[in-house]
Amino acid sequence: MNDSDFKIDHSKMEYFFNPRTIAIIGASSDFRKPGGRSLNALQKRGYTGKIYPINPNSRELLGIPCYPKLADVPDEIDMAIISTPAHTVLEKLEQCVDKKVKATVVFTSGFAEAGPEGAALQQRMTELAQKNDLRILGPNCVGIVNLSKSVMACFANIVDLQPVYPMTFGFVTQSGAFGTMIFSQAVESGVGFNAFVSVGNEADTEFADYLAYMLTNPETKLVGGYLEGAKDGTKLRRAAQTALELKKPVMIMKVGRTGAGARAASSHTGSLAGNDQVYDAFFRQMGIIRLEALSELTSFVIVHRSGRIPKGNNIGILSISGGAGVLMADRSESLGLGVPEFKGETRRRLESYLPPYGSAKNPVDLTATAVSEPQMLGKCLKALVADENIHMIALAMGFMPHMAPVLAKDIIEVYNSTDKPIVLATYVFNPSEAVLHAIETIKSAGVPVLTDHLHAVGALKNLSWYAGKLRDFEKASAKTKTLKISPSATTIERLASSAPLAEYEAKEILKDCGIAITRESLATSAAMAVRMARAVGYPVALKIQSPQIPHKTEADGIRLNVRSDAQVRAAFKEIIGNARKFNPEADIHGVLVQEMAGDGLEIIVGTTRDPVFGHVVMFGLGGIFVEALKDISLRVAPVSRGDAKEMIREIRGYSMLQGMRGRPPVDFQALTDVILRVSKLVSDYGDAIEELDINPLLVFEKGVKALDALIIKK
Amino acid sequence: MNDSDFKIDHSKMEYFFNPRTIAIIGASSDFRKPGGRSLNALQKRGYTGKIYPINPNSRELLGIPCYPKLADVPDEIDMAIISTPAHTVLEKLEQCVDKKVKATVVFTSGFAEAGPEGAALQQRMTELAQKNDLRILGPNCVGIVNLSKSVMACFANIVDLQPVYPMTFGFVTQSGAFGTMIFSQAVESGVGFNAFVSVGNEADTEFADYLAYMLTNPETKLVGGYLEGAKDGTKLRRAAQTALELKKPVMIMKVGRTGAGARAASSHTGSLAGNDQVYDAFFRQMGIIRLEALSELTSFVIVHRSGRIPKGNNIGILSISGGAGVLMADRSESLGLGVPEFKGETRRRLESYLPPYGSAKNPVDLTATAVSEPQMLGKCLKALVADENIHMIALAMGFMPHMAPVLAKDIIEVYNSTDKPIVLATYVFNPSEAVLHAIETIKSAGVPVLTDHLHAVGALKNLSWYAGKLRDFEKASAKTKTLKISPSATTIERLASSAPLAEYEAKEILKDCGIAITRESLATSAAMAVRMARAVGYPVALKIQSPQIPHKTEADGIRLNVRSDAQVRAAFKEIIGNARKFNPEADIHGVLVQEMAGDGLEIIVGTTRDPVFGHVVMFGLGGIFVEALKDISLRVAPVSRGDAKEMIREIRGYSMLQGMRGRPPVDFQALTDVILRVSKLVSDYGDAIEELDINPLLVFEKGVKALDALIIKK
Repeated sequence: MNDSDFKIDHSKMEYFFNPRTIAIIGASSDFRKPGGRSLNALQKRGYTGKIYPINPNSRELLGIPCYPKLADVPDEIDMAIISTPAHTVLEKLEQCVDKKVKATVVFTSGFAEAGPEGAALQQRMTELAQKNDLRILGPNCVGIVNLSKSVMACFANIVDLQPVYPMTFGFVTQSGAFGTMIFSQAVESGVGFNAFVSVGNEADTEFADYLAYMLTNPETKLVGGYLEGAKDGTKLRRAAQTALELKKPVMIMKVGRTGAGARAASSHTGSLAGNDQVYDAFFRQMGIIRLEALSELTSFVIVHRSGRIPKGNNIGILSISGGAGVLMADRSESLGLGVPEFKGETRRRLESYLPPYGSAKNPVDLTATAVSEPQMLGKCLKALVADENIHMIALAMGFMPHMAPVLAKDIIEVYNSTDKPIVLATYVFNPSEAVLHAIETIKSAGVPVLTDHLHAVGALKNLSWYAGKLRDFEKASAKTKTLKISPSATTIERLASSAPLAEYEAKEILKDCGIAITRESLATSAAMAVRMARAVGYPVALKIQSPQIPHKTEADGIRLNVRSDAQVRAAFKEIIGNARKFNPEADIHGVLVQEMAGDGLEIIVGTTRDPVFGHVVMFGLGGIFVEALKDISLRVAPVSRGDAKEMIREIRGYSMLQGMRGRPPVDFQALTDVILRVSKLVSDYGDAIEELDINPLLVFEKGVKALDALIIKK
Repeated sequence: MNDSDFKIDHSKMEYFFNPRTIAIIGASSDFRKPGGRSLNALQKRGYTGKIYPINPNSRELLGIPCYPKLADVPDEIDMAIISTPAHTVLEKLEQCVDKKVKATVVFTSGFAEAGPEGAALQQRMTELAQKNDLRILGPNCVGIVNLSKSVMACFANIVDLQPVYPMTFGFVTQSGAFGTMIFSQAVESGVGFNAFVSVGNEADTEFADYLAYMLTNPETKLVGGYLEGAKDGTKLRRAAQTALELKKPVMIMKVGRTGAGARAASSHTGSLAGNDQVYDAFFRQMGIIRLEALSELTSFVIVHRSGRIPKGNNIGILSISGGAGVLMADRSESLGLGVPEFKGETRRRLESYLPPYGSAKNPVDLTATAVSEPQMLGKCLKALVADENIHMIALAMGFMPHMAPVLAKDIIEVYNSTDKPIVLATYVFNPSEAVLHAIETIKSAGVPVLTDHLHAVGALKNLSWYAGKLRDFEKASAKTKTLKISPSATTIERLASSAPLAEYEAKEILKDCGIAITRESLATSAAMAVRMARAVGYPVALKIQSPQIPHKTEADGIRLNVRSDAQVRAAFKEIIGNARKFNPEADIHGVLVQEMAGDGLEIIVGTTRDPVFGHVVMFGLGGIFVEALKDISLRVAPVSRGDAKEMIREIRGYSMLQGMRGRPPVDFQALTDVILRVSKLVSDYGDAIEELDINPLLVFEKGVKALDALIIKK
């Protein structure tokens, strides 16, 4: 069990969401003050627990008896809200410890975000929390809201908004101001939150703790967050894993994608922003939907609420306007959905319903004829539902008063006849009573309704991507056979030690872990090099071996295509001479005599260490591809077989692997295997490894061969 | 003058927009019928010209005298609206010809969109229009609206919407239903249209005609359209050129981007959908903003209305929420805007205004302190305005009642003190009187106000991209010196003839047009080949030359690195033998003896012919780049020097050209020159050319050399 584990103690987190008693230290009757707004909201919303305002200057606040000090309260306190000046906060927390308070919410700012002095103060908070097992939310946060229990430990104006039902969405934010903006806009778009947490500076509890806890609530169907940088990547991974197990989607808006964003993020909070590419890989790996815009969040929540999961990636599109249909088809394909042309029975049926100038392909264009024959929509929709090759349906439809009852009836009827996801996109202007009523009826029947047809496509894409991730996850969980490596004691020792390694040692380790390397031997004299060259077979390569010379070319320490005994002898001497000149201090182990490998495709497989997520595995096409195009894919270790396959498919130069210029396809199985072995190697034995590089790894029609390798220790 | 030119006859188009008299053939008093809705709208909106309903069954309609036949009208008719069954339309059009009607609007559907019979009918309409110089809009369109003159020759429900001022936007659509949806949503977002045209099947006038005409209206500040496929690329180019001259932005939503979209587009209208990549290149080339979503249209119109054009690409971002600022910075960078960190005086000033935990970098994070000190915003905004390195500013701000008057006053004051574009993004929920009033005041002062902060960034990006295009265009126009080529009579004749060409002939043409080729000669005997090899210098390449063998490798017709007289003799015989076997019918011109060129970077420069835009010039990195990554850039010929430079910079492997693996950068000047010469060649002498390929063109540190070339005739 590692140090950070104790924090995911759900019994403690419980008190943030379901406190039986709440003390407000720094309470006030002034609504504009944080302590006042929270007190007021708790009362107004009908919080059923006990409220204890603490304020030495008042006898009662809003009709509730007030206590001068926390110690004076004649009750156990589950949660204490602290809203007093920064320099008093530590003292208040100590009082909480004395009172055996379980959870504290610190609104106050002026800590790590305000400079070194504040950071030191915050550090003392962290220590106090850990020593006394006191949970702290904040400081510098707007607080926490649990709408289903009317826990309003929050001073943002979101406490004044009317809740939206069903309340199924939990949200965590690293930015109080932006989080509340997201909250209020999403509420307006019909998203039902049940909990909202602003984590502030994360002196004690952090983003992932709340995400993980929210997942335990059976009423919570999905969770999301605004993230600038995770404190502990392992915790976030564990939360995401739990979410996959529970089939609850996680949506995260992660900022700091580019240079400017990252710069601002690190100044905005004290958090360590990991490299954005790693986050991107991590999200993909863990089935986390990465939100680019707020509209993606709201439309996904609405579409997901139907409880329907598409069984594949093909979308059927039906619209009354050809233009909207084409736009949706374009967007669908650019997002990676399939938009198969309708064939056979579906096509025949559609053509029998549509006017001759409608389109029965996909998108289906009902044309303006649907205005006079609104029952056409239901018929076409039925045909799409019946098509096994179509896994979800987007419907863009304008409603006019005379059509509205027919459309509502037909859409609901077809919707209830299938379990395929169907989304209706309809934009109403100049609404009439009949139209509004029809749309309300459709919504009440559970059909997801959005106003923007492109948002409908986006939400379906996220849903089907998520569904695919769920299937992969289930498949991976069902497999009992996982790849194992069994390195020798020497290898394990070599890996664990902090001593640097030469190429041949790194390759011995790879070989011991089941990764094929070139035929080679270390020679410590020219004569020995000749013997080995004969054994390996001419032509050979000679390469200097010294842990202090990781970049052999720089030292002119490589000779390729060496073809005879005489050449080997000469080359050996040259190389040793060059190396001594290059670095007289270097510990020279000898010269590696290596076969000249055949004509394979150059690949790079490696690992780096991310400050948040730990070992990250990289895959790329070698040579100019990686140099000119940075054409690589990443995953956080340990990677699954599915991840490894995705990594290979993800690179832009993928077609190179499939066979180009008359070459046969490469050995994908062998590539996947190398990725998995490298991942296993760093995950199980990599505590001392900073970086690992197999560059190049040659891949052939059959098999692979590591030509060069480098392991850098921490 | 080419055939299609006569159509851009503005004096004729005039009657669509400013008719003095309008006849409605098929008029009705029933608002739900097309003829009725239009009649009603004309009357209700106060059209000041004369209206003549034509209907044999009525004496008067809506109080206006009705005529049985068009011929009965005792007045000249500028515009006739036709809303009668398809089989009667041709007869009605003939009556229009007899009556000397200038412009007709045909609502009726059932033509090219409805199958071969309808297409034949439409073809007769086209012929009638051209023979009699009668302009037709449609058929199968919802019509045309000129809001500033209350011309409501349209049956869509948009005629019922209240106009928005200022009316500065002209819009053309190839989809009636989708166009009206765009119109109504844009109106709701505050876009002021002055004209709307649905072009339907384009039997006579087309999309580009209306775009071009709208530009002539001084009140029109920008134009846009929904496009599935242009009929005549040259016309569209001319309209775009005019727009650049007049500094009026053009925004087009072009669909059919992907396979599914393209399929639907071609079934939705009878138009020829050109390859989408060509459109993309064309739009970039002509400074046309390609819209991906409706929100881009509305936000651009609102931001452009300020009349301010950024002088560069750097954005300053200011927000009250750190999260929003970071998100805007991320989006800005991913869209290609610069988000420079503030330095020096700007930084110093910002830091003096902000609390210690605010960010003075870029984005500026005002923090919640701005709630209690709203005057902070104005001060920071002033600092950004004063920074010469910042060309435009996006401001994301929440308004609370007590802050509103201060914010309004300060924002307006700073806005009026500068000519830099400033956009305010503010999302108001639970609005109070004070907030609404402040925002109205800001809008009235001319400050662009949007609700979504990412839309603000997107609009500024489009504005600065457009500004850059305007600058390029002005620079190109100012240059009098353009590249000239002066091919010999033989070359011109060779290009004009339909006879196919062998490689050596294609290369002679290139050389004659100023493009460097390899040293080479055609040999017709082995002895001659030897003499030539000696002259060219060993080693040489030998290549079969026959117009019937364009792909020489297939015929085993190439020998590389031939090093001696004996090898030349042998190779010559082999090649000739192989070619005869490969294609006994081929006209074999001989064997090309060619120098083995040095170690340059492989490039492809070529042209293809697009059905809409004609010759399209392609640039790409050769070899695996073009094969595995399709890493190419396109422009429609003729290309300008600026275009050619952009083409080179645009490829993903651009860094390869800048020097990789210790290579020096390539000769960019020489590459640009080749693109320009190829463009000129096909533009001026390419009527018979279908395709041209220089593959590879080797580029060196100094100079280029065409190694192989292929010209395919039509």
